[in-house]
Amino acid sequence: MSSPSLASPIGPVVGVIGAGQLARMTQQAAIALGVELRVLAGSPDESAARVIVDVRVGDYRNLADLRDFAKGCDALTFDHEHVPTEHIRALAGDGSAVHPGADALVHAQDKAVMRERLTAIGVPCPPWRRIATAADVEEFAAENGWPVVLKAVRGGYDGRGVWICRSAGDAAEVLASGVPLMAEAFVPFERELAVLVARSPHGQGVSYPVVETVQCDGICVEVLAPAPGLDPEQAAVAQGIALKIANELGVTGLLAVEMFATASGLVVNELAMRPHNSGHWTIDGARTSQFEQHLRAVLDLPLGSPSLTAPVVVMANLLGGDDPDIFSRYEHVMAHDPGIKVHFYGKEVRPGRKIGHVTAAGTDLDEVRARARHAAVYLTEGVYT
Amino acid sequence: MSSPSLASPIGPVVGVIGAGQLARMTQQAAIALGVELRVLAGSPDESAARVIVDVRVGDYRNLADLRDFAKGCDALTFDHEHVPTEHIRALAGDGSAVHPGADALVHAQDKAVMRERLTAIGVPCPPWRRIATAADVEEFAAENGWPVVLKAVRGGYDGRGVWICRSAGDAAEVLASGVPLMAEAFVPFERELAVLVARSPHGQGVSYPVVETVQCDGICVEVLAPAPGLDPEQAAVAQGIALKIANELGVTGLLAVEMFATASGLVVNELAMRPHNSGHWTIDGARTSQFEQHLRAVLDLPLGSPSLTAPVVVMANLLGGDDPDIFSRYEHVMAHDPGIKVHFYGKEVRPGRKIGHVTAAGTDLDEVRARARHAAVYLTEGVYT
Repeated sequence: MSSPSLASPIGPVVGVIGAGQLARMTQQAAIALGVELRVLAGSPDESAARVIVDVRVGDYRNLADLRDFAKGCDALTFDHEHVPTEHIRALAGDGSAVHPGADALVHAQDKAVMRERLTAIGVPCPPWRRIATAADVEEFAAENGWPVVLKAVRGGYDGRGVWICRSAGDAAEVLASGVPLMAEAFVPFERELAVLVARSPHGQGVSYPVVETVQCDGICVEVLAPAPGLDPEQAAVAQGIALKIANELGVTGLLAVEMFATASGLVVNELAMRPHNSGHWTIDGARTSQFEQHLRAVLDLPLGSPSLTAPVVVMANLLGGDDPDIFSRYEHVMAHDPGIKVHFYGKEVRPGRKIGHVTAAGTDLDEVRARARHAAVYLTEGVYT
Repeated sequence: MSSPSLASPIGPVVGVIGAGQLARMTQQAAIALGVELRVLAGSPDESAARVIVDVRVGDYRNLADLRDFAKGCDALTFDHEHVPTEHIRALAGDGSAVHPGADALVHAQDKAVMRERLTAIGVPCPPWRRIATAADVEEFAAENGWPVVLKAVRGGYDGRGVWICRSAGDAAEVLASGVPLMAEAFVPFERELAVLVARSPHGQGVSYPVVETVQCDGICVEVLAPAPGLDPEQAAVAQGIALKIANELGVTGLLAVEMFATASGLVVNELAMRPHNSGHWTIDGARTSQFEQHLRAVLDLPLGSPSLTAPVVVMANLLGGDDPDIFSRYEHVMAHDPGIKVHFYGKEVRPGRKIGHVTAAGTDLDEVRARARHAAVYLTEGVYT
């Protein structure tokens, strides 16, 4: 490795901008590798800040804060995609090794830029268009039919910033918000798949098995690994698409590609360039967790094996309910299922908030899925299913 | 769970006395469970102190320091076995939940107390005797033959405090040191086995599969899980012995039982009551790592599944060599073997010091063992084997 600090018995310093659960889980991998993690947190009680020693409190929108944070880091990466693109360019200009770089990350920040690029490199996308006016939407609908999916070009996640409009009236409401928008044709999908790949600066790529993601109200609630019953050829196509995107866009670190499986093939939905909810199952279910993989990629180390540690792995998110008393319910879920893996992010419990996840592994999909669901429902709602 | 703090969305606080690699690796499990770890470190740059936010610097031999440390902890446990037994009793008297308790832990602190108790409950031990003089040793040798193994009654670990004496002259040298000693007959063993069990305060017990440990100069260098070719009946006997000891001694938390396999059966060698080097393979190779298991036990949560995630798992210790530049050698070992798991403890590299470990998993023992050895030798010595 080329960075001089790597020669020290004290590990390389990786700075993570943002201190949510992704940075928190990255700390588990950093501990194993002897990598020193530093986080830029908005406040000292954020999820990752509770488990990482080197916490800097600052604003990721403020270049001076980012520059202070970057000092002494061997590599910089992200817990989220909200750092202004121009600040990332400035950090790289200062000499920081930022992964992913601004030119790649912009495709996960700006959905219109993403669609332009994916279309240009021949990756299947739904029909789409930048729109500004009601007339633009009507014209798009005339060509592609209703419903029309309007998306905020920037800033959306977990279903926020996405509106399924069934009429010009629906669209007018969204247009009234004034945020820059694009339109996409509604894709009548059979199911949603996700492919998580890693790519390192020297160009090595690795793909995890294709997974099925199950969403509810735009939020991922369940991930099935590998995607049940997926034709191996279609799996290879999906992995090929994700690796192609990583390569063409120059992604360094992780890239999650969310796809729709339709009767006529795969269509790319969204990109994320960081550890992703669709990859949480890898902590317990793969030889290399996505968090370790991301660290290896941003440090330009050889990538780790993505193979599963069980034939079937299911992850279910814990979405906060009305009752914050999660710990009191550990006893039941652990006694009921000694193999269940509980992950709690140390976040205040609020309704609908992602506060943790559980993972189950085994051989029979229905049984493994039932185990994960039982634990998730019981932990969040105290209901025995 | 009964502790009031467990009702909070912020997890229970577990205080670990000592801040070595065992506490460090416990943090990985604590992050997942949302348990808040606090460590009592001798200095702020110790292995665990580098990755845990709540570090208190103090002396584990000082009761005032221990009492300060214990305030606000829901449970107390240990990274090592050197806390004076009377201090542990005092902490329990203050109302702290200390796991293991003093009455159990003394058996891992005082080898003569351990031998007395194991003999009393019918656990197979080598012939042994407390000794004070050269005449005692000669008498013991007359009955049991040379060599005689002299052991410091307290304070030994990793081969320290153990002397294999082949003559009265050898013994005289050890006796001259003035430390309280006991004698044990030398056991002509075929191999060494270890059984790791957990026991919770409410009495649940779990045993991991029996492993074979390979020692060099009294230091564990390799662990093979499960112990190759072990007769299932003998494995059950070994697990039964360990669970019996845990139960009879009232162990809470983990108990590692090191055994000699001899032509005439199993003989218990040593006990440890904490996460143990013979269980490091569980991080990557079992559904529940020993560190998570220990946390679950000390919090009186139901114990987790000890099942393997691969047919064969091999752990090899990284013992510091002359060259501290471990990180520069990550590149080769990771490229050579994408499935190798590297654990580096963030400790200064000194010759012979345990500075990390590697784990390999697979199906063929010889191949998996060769992978682990290759990585361990290359990381520590830079030699390609």
